[in-house]
Amino acid sequence: MKIARIIKGNNETYGFVKDNKISTKDEITYLTGVPIPYNIKDFLFDGWYDEIKDKIEKLPYEEELSNFKLLAPIPNPNKIICLAFNYVDHAKEQGLTAPEDPALVIKPRTALNHTKGEIKCPDFVTQLDYEVELALIIGKDCKNVKPEEAMDAIFGYMIMNDVSARDIQNKDKQFTRGKGFDTFAPCGPWITTKDEIMNPQNLKLTTKVNGDYRQNSNTDNMFIKIPQIISKISKVMTLEKGDIISTGTPAGVMLNKPNAVYLKDGDVIEMEIEGLGKLENIIKFTKSE
Amino acid sequence: MKIARIIKGNNETYGFVKDNKISTKDEITYLTGVPIPYNIKDFLFDGWYDEIKDKIEKLPYEEELSNFKLLAPIPNPNKIICLAFNYVDHAKEQGLTAPEDPALVIKPRTALNHTKGEIKCPDFVTQLDYEVELALIIGKDCKNVKPEEAMDAIFGYMIMNDVSARDIQNKDKQFTRGKGFDTFAPCGPWITTKDEIMNPQNLKLTTKVNGDYRQNSNTDNMFIKIPQIISKISKVMTLEKGDIISTGTPAGVMLNKPNAVYLKDGDVIEMEIEGLGKLENIIKFTKSE
Repeated sequence: MKIARIIKGNNETYGFVKDNKISTKDEITYLTGVPIPYNIKDFLFDGWYDEIKDKIEKLPYEEELSNFKLLAPIPNPNKIICLAFNYVDHAKEQGLTAPEDPALVIKPRTALNHTKGEIKCPDFVTQLDYEVELALIIGKDCKNVKPEEAMDAIFGYMIMNDVSARDIQNKDKQFTRGKGFDTFAPCGPWITTKDEIMNPQNLKLTTKVNGDYRQNSNTDNMFIKIPQIISKISKVMTLEKGDIISTGTPAGVMLNKPNAVYLKDGDVIEMEIEGLGKLENIIKFTKSE
Repeated sequence: MKIARIIKGNNETYGFVKDNKISTKDEITYLTGVPIPYNIKDFLFDGWYDEIKDKIEKLPYEEELSNFKLLAPIPNPNKIICLAFNYVDHAKEQGLTAPEDPALVIKPRTALNHTKGEIKCPDFVTQLDYEVELALIIGKDCKNVKPEEAMDAIFGYMIMNDVSARDIQNKDKQFTRGKGFDTFAPCGPWITTKDEIMNPQNLKLTTKVNGDYRQNSNTDNMFIKIPQIISKISKVMTLEKGDIISTGTPAGVMLNKPNAVYLKDGDVIEMEIEGLGKLENIIKFTKSE
């Protein structure tokens, strides 16, 4: 199942996506008589998916998805956790080795953005960069999860662009400010439930800027694999329904490269991960106040 | 006004503190006939304080505060932002100079803890340290705040202990994981509204471990002052009602000291900031799973 949060008319709602068409939650209710929750988080994390799974195939899928504005799939997540240097190819291009334990950065929820949304960057940032990442969406509250049980904690997957101001992260040493700007966490375009992804550790992931490939790797290049990521983070902090864990980026970013071409106003970034759709954003530099 | 979130009977509620006594929100309603909000965040940030300010003096204050369990004053804040190396004395003891722009770390809300709560540290942590900090509680949603208007964005103050696993923060370079453990953000003991603090930039702040002073400084040692902290952070991210900004710690922590005596099981930490009360916690090392 692919679940998108959308604006329909003037209201926020959600729906199910198939072949670029969408059926909204009201159609589920019409078809089944079951009033599924108003709030997408209640639907996602309170067992509704299993309840209506077999009905979703029977939906009409009559409306074009492109007619709607898509929103960040999870509103108000409690945490957006990003891993640093977790791809072998990316660590290598930075002259590093990937760390055994996950080096973490938390993005504020005010950074959330959606596909087709502008990445609004104040003009005091001089080195704006992209990072395509596989994001895990946590489906249940959990602590001290064993690696062999970690996949049970996942509800689904989406694409995350871990947008980063390199000049600021290099200056601060801590990456939080440079990655924490409003609009610096585009994600989506929708949630793909985990049953649709046979092996999340073998997905092609790419970034194109203005049509040219910049990142082109595979999630099998992750150093700490997904079960260990969840296990290790959950030894530190309780994971909660709706938390987002972005699992690190592969090679191909501009960070610290001698001939780096950083993002500029009007650049179009397209990110794809096999089976998860395409996340597309445009850069908009704004005059800082 | 001092506002505490407490457990009374089996329920969460909140009340007003004076001289170690408390009157709960139900007493306000009884006294005034005005049903103030059930939820403390609605009370704090929807203008209720101004509404009932003159009534608070007339409350009976009959119950001993010590009879109640105090909770972290703000439930579910959207952000807990901590500044690194913002005190001149602390930067100096680390052989650093305080940075002109705030180096930030975000703690997850799952780290929240309260006065008298145990700081539960898994036994794989080898260098556990304390940091007394003045925490600002943001009272309104705001972006690009000018320094001269920044104080309007503050609702009140409290103490924060920015508990840190130094072995992990040194290993990761990024501080988020080492500061992000469950229970590593004790705060309170209550909120003191800003009208009670004449000059937040001139408050004595201290840490005692098992009765011995370890930190003893003054908020006038901050390098980036409060209006600039709010202004600079709000150029990056929208601040929201209930967000917590912890303004950095002064000298006296154990980090990287040659003869460091890190915290051990059973240690009692008492932190005081002039006018804001006392935050007291005990260290509990737990067997890691």
